[in-house]
Amino acid sequence: MQKTMNKDLQQCAKECLDCFQICSETFYQYCLVQGGEHTEPKHFKLMQDCINICRTSAEFLLRGSDNHKATCRACAEICQKCADDCARFNDPQMKACADACRKCAEMCKQMSQ
Amino acid sequence: MQKTMNKDLQQCAKECLDCFQICSETFYQYCLVQGGEHTEPKHFKLMQDCINICRTSAEFLLRGSDNHKATCRACAEICQKCADDCARFNDPQMKACADACRKCAEMCKQMSQ
Amino acid sequence: MQKTMNKDLQQCAKECLDCFQICSETFYQYCLVQGGEHTEPKHFKLMQDCINICRTSAEFLLRGSDNHKATCRACAEICQKCADDCARFNDPQMKACADACRKCAEMCKQMSQ
Amino acid sequence: MQKTMNKDLQQCAKECLDCFQICSETFYQYCLVQGGEHTEPKHFKLMQDCINICRTSAEFLLRGSDNHKATCRACAEICQKCADDCARFNDPQMKACADACRKCAEMCKQMSQ
Repeated sequence: MQKTMNKDLQQCAKECLDCFQICSETFYQYCLVQGGEHTEPKHFKLMQDCINICRTSAEFLLRGSDNHKATCRACAEICQKCADDCARFNDPQMKACADACRKCAEMCKQMSQ
Repeated sequence: MQKTMNKDLQQCAKECLDCFQICSETFYQYCLVQGGEHTEPKHFKLMQDCINICRTSAEFLLRGSDNHKATCRACAEICQKCADDCARFNDPQMKACADACRKCAEMCKQMSQ
Repeated sequence: MQKTMNKDLQQCAKECLDCFQICSETFYQYCLVQGGEHTEPKHFKLMQDCINICRTSAEFLLRGSDNHKATCRACAEICQKCADDCARFNDPQMKACADACRKCAEMCKQMSQ
Repeated sequence: MQKTMNKDLQQCAKECLDCFQICSETFYQYCLVQGGEHTEPKHFKLMQDCINICRTSAEFLLRGSDNHKATCRACAEICQKCADDCARFNDPQMKACADACRKCAEMCKQMSQ
């Protein structure tokens, strides 16, 4: 991308899109196959929230929006909850998901300040 | 909708979708035709931000998400800015848009507390 | 909205947003509470597809996009499948959902031609 | 991602997200700065359509949706138009954008069959 593009915004957008991607794949192609506690409504809705806010946060960042702090703040809060919830599970797929959520939460927290 | 559906969430979702709708129509089918200051990058990006966060806020509310406060907070902040920016213009279409933004900002502010 | 706004586009956007809204509420606040066959992966993913394409189709229509036929075509196809799937259930909430899907499918089919 | 994840869906989702990302950055952080024909309504709305359908197509693919053919078909059609429109410009940023659109159009066309 051209020089005018802010590197921090771009890096944070990347973390949001990575988290969006791994949470989407994990939920629809892993949790739904596993069933049981992987599809409990509470976990379920939190994963949806995470996918939703990561997409939105990325959209604000890619737009170079002046309001990205507001969406990064919401994203950091929700991704952190999702990271904690995914870390409860004892399998590599959920761990990978928790890692992506945690990375995204940290970068968004920084960008919201 | 069935009785279990929270009326406040539903009303707030309606305000967000109304704002989403009028801002989208106004921007793409009115501002783009007017040109000039109606399409200045600053106004332009704020309208996009408003459309974007209203959609996301509605998605959280329709899901009955525990995290709707975080997205309502961001939505209230951005809609208020957009309302102020649209109110600068002296035409009925922008006034209608400003009104929808203001109503949405107020309801989202309440729901974020 | 101002005179330049096409009434058919506007009406179709309304059907898409109505379907988006009732499918979101029904899925997250009714199906998830009912469990059982209301949350089977196949039904589940179809509801998500319907919510997703209705939102996108509405976005194209509200933009007055030249490409709305392509998204209306996809929307008509997916909403019809979702209507049929929801009609299998014997309860008023799912019937209401099936009705909204069918109305949206019909209007989108018309608009795609 | 786990073995059950279809590699073609995953690769196509990647092309859609790449196109979504470069079109968003290019439009908001390059075209808006350039002005002139870079922000003409026709070009403008086509870029928005492309960003919009790429996001939606990626969402269907990441969900492993049975209906991804319908959205890939729409995505292929719109990305091809956007590629042609971006290729008219004589600058490296728009060329990069056209390339991403063309790659996405080709992969989506394949996946829609």
